[in-house]
Amino acid sequence: MKNLLVAQSGGPTSVINGTLVGVLQSAGAMLKSGKVFGAFNGIQGVLEETFIDLDYLSKDIDSLEILAQTPAAALGSCRYKLEDYKVDETKYETLIKIFNKHNIGYFIYIGGNDSMDTVEKISRYIREKNIADISVIGVPKTIDNDLEGTDHCPGYGSAAKYIATSFAEMERDLAVYKTPTCVVVEIMGRNAGWLTASSALARLNGGKGPGLIYLCERTFSFDKFLTSVEKKIKEDTGVLIAISEGVKDSNGKYICEIASEKSTDAFGHKFISGSSQILANLIRDNTGVKVRPVELSLLQRCGGHVASRRDLEESIKVGNKAVSIALEGKSGEMSSMKRISSDPYDLVFTSVPVEMSANHEKKVPDSYISESGDDVTLEAINYMKPLIEGEVNIRYRNGIPNHFIFNR
Amino acid sequence: MKNLLVAQSGGPTSVINGTLVGVLQSAGAMLKSGKVFGAFNGIQGVLEETFIDLDYLSKDIDSLEILAQTPAAALGSCRYKLEDYKVDETKYETLIKIFNKHNIGYFIYIGGNDSMDTVEKISRYIREKNIADISVIGVPKTIDNDLEGTDHCPGYGSAAKYIATSFAEMERDLAVYKTPTCVVVEIMGRNAGWLTASSALARLNGGKGPGLIYLCERTFSFDKFLTSVEKKIKEDTGVLIAISEGVKDSNGKYICEIASEKSTDAFGHKFISGSSQILANLIRDNTGVKVRPVELSLLQRCGGHVASRRDLEESIKVGNKAVSIALEGKSGEMSSMKRISSDPYDLVFTSVPVEMSANHEKKVPDSYISESGDDVTLEAINYMKPLIEGEVNIRYRNGIPNHFIFNR
Repeated sequence: MKNLLVAQSGGPTSVINGTLVGVLQSAGAMLKSGKVFGAFNGIQGVLEETFIDLDYLSKDIDSLEILAQTPAAALGSCRYKLEDYKVDETKYETLIKIFNKHNIGYFIYIGGNDSMDTVEKISRYIREKNIADISVIGVPKTIDNDLEGTDHCPGYGSAAKYIATSFAEMERDLAVYKTPTCVVVEIMGRNAGWLTASSALARLNGGKGPGLIYLCERTFSFDKFLTSVEKKIKEDTGVLIAISEGVKDSNGKYICEIASEKSTDAFGHKFISGSSQILANLIRDNTGVKVRPVELSLLQRCGGHVASRRDLEESIKVGNKAVSIALEGKSGEMSSMKRISSDPYDLVFTSVPVEMSANHEKKVPDSYISESGDDVTLEAINYMKPLIEGEVNIRYRNGIPNHFIFNR
Repeated sequence: MKNLLVAQSGGPTSVINGTLVGVLQSAGAMLKSGKVFGAFNGIQGVLEETFIDLDYLSKDIDSLEILAQTPAAALGSCRYKLEDYKVDETKYETLIKIFNKHNIGYFIYIGGNDSMDTVEKISRYIREKNIADISVIGVPKTIDNDLEGTDHCPGYGSAAKYIATSFAEMERDLAVYKTPTCVVVEIMGRNAGWLTASSALARLNGGKGPGLIYLCERTFSFDKFLTSVEKKIKEDTGVLIAISEGVKDSNGKYICEIASEKSTDAFGHKFISGSSQILANLIRDNTGVKVRPVELSLLQRCGGHVASRRDLEESIKVGNKAVSIALEGKSGEMSSMKRISSDPYDLVFTSVPVEMSANHEKKVPDSYISESGDDVTLEAINYMKPLIEGEVNIRYRNGIPNHFIFNR
């Protein structure tokens, strides 16, 4: 029987290793005489043959549980864009040689848009060259939730839970003082505002949540922003503002680019700074109110200790599904999720042609954004809410989460 | 029997409400006919008589459990410095009038250095004026861990656990890429580096932890910093740097002040920025390496979802202890903890004269800082380690932590 190769790519999420576990589980159960290899650092590792035999892991329930709870890709990642084979075929020839050498019949690639592009290109090459017996399957993951072809992306729910939890906690923090304070929170997402939208989930237990929410799907206006902030400050002593890192003005320029232009610090270094910092300075100068910028930065994408149980379970299942469609002989497909209903939450695991996802970006739809452009709608809440539900019983050791690390 | 009044003050912590719960538990059990009142917004609320009858809570086990898990002071806080009564006696006269009006025999104040100053002043006034039957007791809390008179401060362990967990998770995040990356993490603490030191606890399960740790107990040198960073980048692809917000150069100036001097952004606003941002720009300009600044900001002091169980339990017990020493008729004392041993961890709950803590700041001792000045010693690890141990079984609802909020 043929062997299976799995690799991870793109930015870290809290549950991308859950998908790896799902792949290992199903491969262990279904491959019979075939072996499971992992490649370190994505497609780059495949090309460099930095393989690891993963058979030893497939039956080690204890290690698999810790691996599933470990944030960020345990097999490493890469930022490697394959040229189309019509431009340069050499890399593809190398890949096929390596696949044949190791008797790889199934290649499963876990990643985001760029990784699905890789899956699409390799599977198309294999199809057009009539190469038999190599099935290439993609599995979605991204905190950005911007992949087409799946209801949502594994990794999004956990990042959203981190964000909603952090907003709920910051709201408690702001509530202790009577002095007006404003906190501008910058959230990841350069082209889609899904994560920023999730800040609204801090309202689920009766909290106020963010007073203003700015997604990158809407053009940002400094004047309108200041007017809205001033109004909010009058209404409430503690105002939380959620802003996508990707918000742009009417000229299509990122906020942080605009304000950093020509500015240098006292040492003469270019003053690179996030949007939250820039907007905090703007509010401070114009209102005199106490302002704090907060950038959730890396923390939101690797906060595995507060992963969503539903997200983790689904991440494992899309991994399971990837193996079963590979073994069915399909190729150029992406394991995906189709929502049947939000309340009660119901979902089927399926697959779609990977072209649907490769290089596309799913934006937050208009119906999820309030008319004022500075909040989300109930429809958005209903979509996001089920994805953060449930907690993972994280295994701690010495007071910190226990992580799985491959020996390399 | 006399009534008991409790209030909270200073900056938020994840477990200051645990102490409130401890006070309510013991008051409920020991006060008999006396009532328990809370004052909103610390001593300011006492002076304004914004009281709430808390008797209803004392027996509500369910609400007490949620209250104990809710970060930041549920009764609110204040930044109010009482003038010494020798300068102005009026506020003290008002306080005594209010205490008498509500038949308050016990006043318990939960807070940091400034709050202990308040406890010291009021108790001294009462003693020197020979006012009978009013016992004033302080209970320590601060994430900064800078109070004298107690082995450590309730609130520190949970913030340290948040920091150590975040460092462990960011280390996983950095490990996925092969490109050299540097992350400069700014941690709270303007005058003491206890929290920054706790980043080293990310090493407890075999992790590398921060490559460099800069506490505000040591003078910061830009040149030395750059040399050390350059060396670390050569050794490793992912370098985490922990830095106290309070680090100062040899002229006693904060890093963030120095670089922000005379600098403005493109809008002409003063460019206020944190140390992590400044140092990230410095590293980027000098090494060309990818750098990210991360500021743990509010998140580290209100991250109740990852509170330390030991910290929460101790917070409750210092609250219990405060009530029992108040009922013994003591005044001008602070409930405190005395460590018997670190391994196995053993502790006694006791009390000390509040003068020991009021207006003092406990720095990280020399023996806890490495000779190189950019790391901590094993002695520091042994001191901190027990404080982050154990996890709280946090109650979630709708995917986010369930918080207790007083109706006001």
